[in-house]
Amino acid sequence: MMGVLVVGTVTLDTVETPQKRVEDVLGGSGTYAAVAASFFGNPVRLIGVVGTDFPQEYTDFLQIRSIDLEGLTRVENGKTFRWGGKYAEDFNVRDTLFTELNVVTDFHPVLPDAYKETPYLFLANDPPQLQLSIIEQASNPKLVVCDTMDFWIHEEREALEKTIERVDILILNDSEAKLLTGESNLLNAARAILRKGPQRVIIKKGEHGAISITESSFFSAPAYPLTSVVDPTGAGDSFAGGFMGYLASVGDVSEGSIRKAMMYGTVVASFNIEDFSINRQKSVQFDEIEARYRELQDAMRF
Amino acid sequence: MMGVLVVGTVTLDTVETPQKRVEDVLGGSGTYAAVAASFFGNPVRLIGVVGTDFPQEYTDFLQIRSIDLEGLTRVENGKTFRWGGKYAEDFNVRDTLFTELNVVTDFHPVLPDAYKETPYLFLANDPPQLQLSIIEQASNPKLVVCDTMDFWIHEEREALEKTIERVDILILNDSEAKLLTGESNLLNAARAILRKGPQRVIIKKGEHGAISITESSFFSAPAYPLTSVVDPTGAGDSFAGGFMGYLASVGDVSEGSIRKAMMYGTVVASFNIEDFSINRQKSVQFDEIEARYRELQDAMRF
Repeated sequence: MMGVLVVGTVTLDTVETPQKRVEDVLGGSGTYAAVAASFFGNPVRLIGVVGTDFPQEYTDFLQIRSIDLEGLTRVENGKTFRWGGKYAEDFNVRDTLFTELNVVTDFHPVLPDAYKETPYLFLANDPPQLQLSIIEQASNPKLVVCDTMDFWIHEEREALEKTIERVDILILNDSEAKLLTGESNLLNAARAILRKGPQRVIIKKGEHGAISITESSFFSAPAYPLTSVVDPTGAGDSFAGGFMGYLASVGDVSEGSIRKAMMYGTVVASFNIEDFSINRQKSVQFDEIEARYRELQDAMRF
Repeated sequence: MMGVLVVGTVTLDTVETPQKRVEDVLGGSGTYAAVAASFFGNPVRLIGVVGTDFPQEYTDFLQIRSIDLEGLTRVENGKTFRWGGKYAEDFNVRDTLFTELNVVTDFHPVLPDAYKETPYLFLANDPPQLQLSIIEQASNPKLVVCDTMDFWIHEEREALEKTIERVDILILNDSEAKLLTGESNLLNAARAILRKGPQRVIIKKGEHGAISITESSFFSAPAYPLTSVVDPTGAGDSFAGGFMGYLASVGDVSEGSIRKAMMYGTVVASFNIEDFSINRQKSVQFDEIEARYRELQDAMRF
């Protein structure tokens, strides 16, 4: 069985939507990605850090999902990363209310020996220096995929460029792709990113789906059409996690498998959006994932 | 041969982009749609109105495209509809600089007898009362497709609702779909439109493509990936015109043909964007259309 190693944040989130407010719910890029990857039956390992305030029920949930937590560091007397965000009426605008890095500030993860040979490595949103250190500790991974965000493009561009040089696939938002390259045309932005090192760039466009671009291929994946948007937090990480989980399950990174993986990522992200935190994922069955996958197949057939 | 009847505006446009400004170039919803439909080899008839200031070279161009101009009224001593618009850096924002309706104000077209039995009827952007009058004069068309815009939703909602009741397919922008229905979720907006009468709604999302929704089907078409955006004016009308032209060429309105027609519309629109006015369409060959169609097929295959 091919494993997936997810490196990312594990956080306590406070999220406000026009309908509801939730406090200190389980969140973080690592959480969303690992949970998404765990749907595909392969070992999922999570590298992250929490404080002693991290609720036992959240740890229990991750373990129930069969996520290996040997790499989840618990800092004594530390406080877990906390993030607060607020969505406007149509969910297209999100304001960050607060970001308390807490235990993440001094986190320098050492890969457990058992993790070093994990073939599928996903570096979810994290400081680029941390991402690079993981790449350097990993032992010949089959695929290295990296996400990032506007904050690191602004604050740590040099370190980020060094990390990007070393990854096979960079996943990021459309606005981040434009910010990283200074290109206002998305296709030009994607091509500029390919020149920085990755063989492939996957650009997430939220409700408009995602595109994948290499030197010689272009693929466009629509989003799953949803009427019940409750909380989009973590959708991008769920997309990436589902993408990695599917790839690990087939053990193949061909163009065909990459495209299917994007569609599975799209489906897992669609469930994520239907409730706060990872609540919807608690009840999702694999046949529901397959059903939405088939719906998307039909929605793209002509 | 199945004909297409296009009813829409024929205008003289002044367009400003960050790169260039053009004045009194051939434009209008009817022009773009008719030119797009004319690529598919079927008779295309155009209902519209111009003034005596309408340049002969523009009339000549439409005739070279084999567009039947019996329905193009020329008002003696009248001035052609003029529109001016300005695009911002990334082409996503357009400001209307001026709109001079001129001869359109008192235009009450009477369908020439030869036009009445045209099976494919496309009502491009026009006052909804005018659109309804055409529907009432047409003799049992096989397919009635209607476009509209925010101006009519604001100013002539009642008349527009009456027109919408009578059409098979409504084509409009995402923001217009939301405005027309008061729904912020696009899928809910589409469903609300279906309850107003049309069997199908096609929502144009600009650079994010278009979706088609019926009671029982969902189709998502990406935009053609372009790096050379010169002037997006008329892209939506070109999409609709290509859509109608393809349908007329196959003489079929099945779900399968509708989907292919959306892809052909997407391709014709992509050429339109590569130059001002209909300049790019002057040189496009059908094998170029087929080549982009195949590229899109590949970009959606998984």
